[in-house]
Amino acid sequence: MVRQARSEATRRRIITSAVHLFNEIGYDATGLGDIIEHAEMTKGALYYHFDSKQSLANAIIEEGNANLLHAFNSISESSAPALERIIHGVFVAVDLLSTDRVARSGLHLLQALGESNSVAAQHYGAWIHNMTLGLREAIEEGDLRPDLDTRALGETLVGAVLGIEVLSSAMSSGADVSDRLTRMWELLLPVIVTDESLPYFRAFLARQSMRHSGQDSG
Amino acid sequence: MVRQARSEATRRRIITSAVHLFNEIGYDATGLGDIIEHAEMTKGALYYHFDSKQSLANAIIEEGNANLLHAFNSISESSAPALERIIHGVFVAVDLLSTDRVARSGLHLLQALGESNSVAAQHYGAWIHNMTLGLREAIEEGDLRPDLDTRALGETLVGAVLGIEVLSSAMSSGADVSDRLTRMWELLLPVIVTDESLPYFRAFLARQSMRHSGQDSG
Repeated sequence: MVRQARSEATRRRIITSAVHLFNEIGYDATGLGDIIEHAEMTKGALYYHFDSKQSLANAIIEEGNANLLHAFNSISESSAPALERIIHGVFVAVDLLSTDRVARSGLHLLQALGESNSVAAQHYGAWIHNMTLGLREAIEEGDLRPDLDTRALGETLVGAVLGIEVLSSAMSSGADVSDRLTRMWELLLPVIVTDESLPYFRAFLARQSMRHSGQDSG
Repeated sequence: MVRQARSEATRRRIITSAVHLFNEIGYDATGLGDIIEHAEMTKGALYYHFDSKQSLANAIIEEGNANLLHAFNSISESSAPALERIIHGVFVAVDLLSTDRVARSGLHLLQALGESNSVAAQHYGAWIHNMTLGLREAIEEGDLRPDLDTRALGETLVGAVLGIEVLSSAMSSGADVSDRLTRMWELLLPVIVTDESLPYFRAFLARQSMRHSGQDSG
């Protein structure tokens, strides 16, 4: 038990050091030797947990995306209407990117995987699946227009949020991501929300936007 | 003159080899030595043109994005209404990604730059600028609703297209990018286009979609 806790602490230290170095000098320029030195441990200790830089990157992607999906889903499990949970959940996930370095690093490593990659396809697929289920619920609840193609909308939403994060990272280190997100929803709400629910969701978005836009500078 | 042409041919061969290797084994795993070997040239010849892998990557980003912007803008200079040129131009730029390996590689290297990067900010900024100008024209022409915030819409559009490309690359090596693009426009047109112009642009999109969706497998 003690041994297991110590092993987990070592693994954590490796991941923290790797995230720090990937962020400071880039994934490409970081060697396993740099990570060993920064984490102040032996080569053996690192290789016990990770056999390559790629397997370390995969662990960061796994953990980071699990944190993001957990943030999104823990909102989703509340008893609020589905569309509220989606809007709120995306803000919360995006906020997490500014405070959780593993989540942020994991997402950037995921984006860098590029071409037809099963790891990336699986992670993006999980987001699209979650989003699509929520949208379907929101139709049943009368908040979204019944003729919407939920799968298409789910894919477009995940794509748009992903692109907004890429833009915001490059242009402001993520500081304006909530503002960009608000503008995306302002644009989308009138097409996807039913006429009866639209005034409510405009007000809901305005409140969410106010609550989250201040948190991005951290 | 002959010397200059030969120098340009060498530079071209280096870029072609680098794009090939970045695509096959990844940017990270590719060494300058691999590129020298693949391009069948001397170390001196490579260093004459590029002093590091990063400067080679920057050259690919520059050239790739210039090709994409050129494809988008050459449509934009035609005499068609601005919104037609935007819709068509995005399809053409996205098509180019499936045939122009430098453009594709450049975009993926750009995305991998990650955190607050002046090169990335400049390239994305150029796209947002071009898009915003086109949208403003489309308002003047009566095709877009006059109360739209063109800058916000331009940023959201560039973000969404970028995200769609990331998703499509990861999930289908880009094969479904035009279909995803069509779904994005189908969703957006009803909110941004004036009531008078909407039927026309729905038909225009359907034709564009048919023309471009077959070309992605190449």
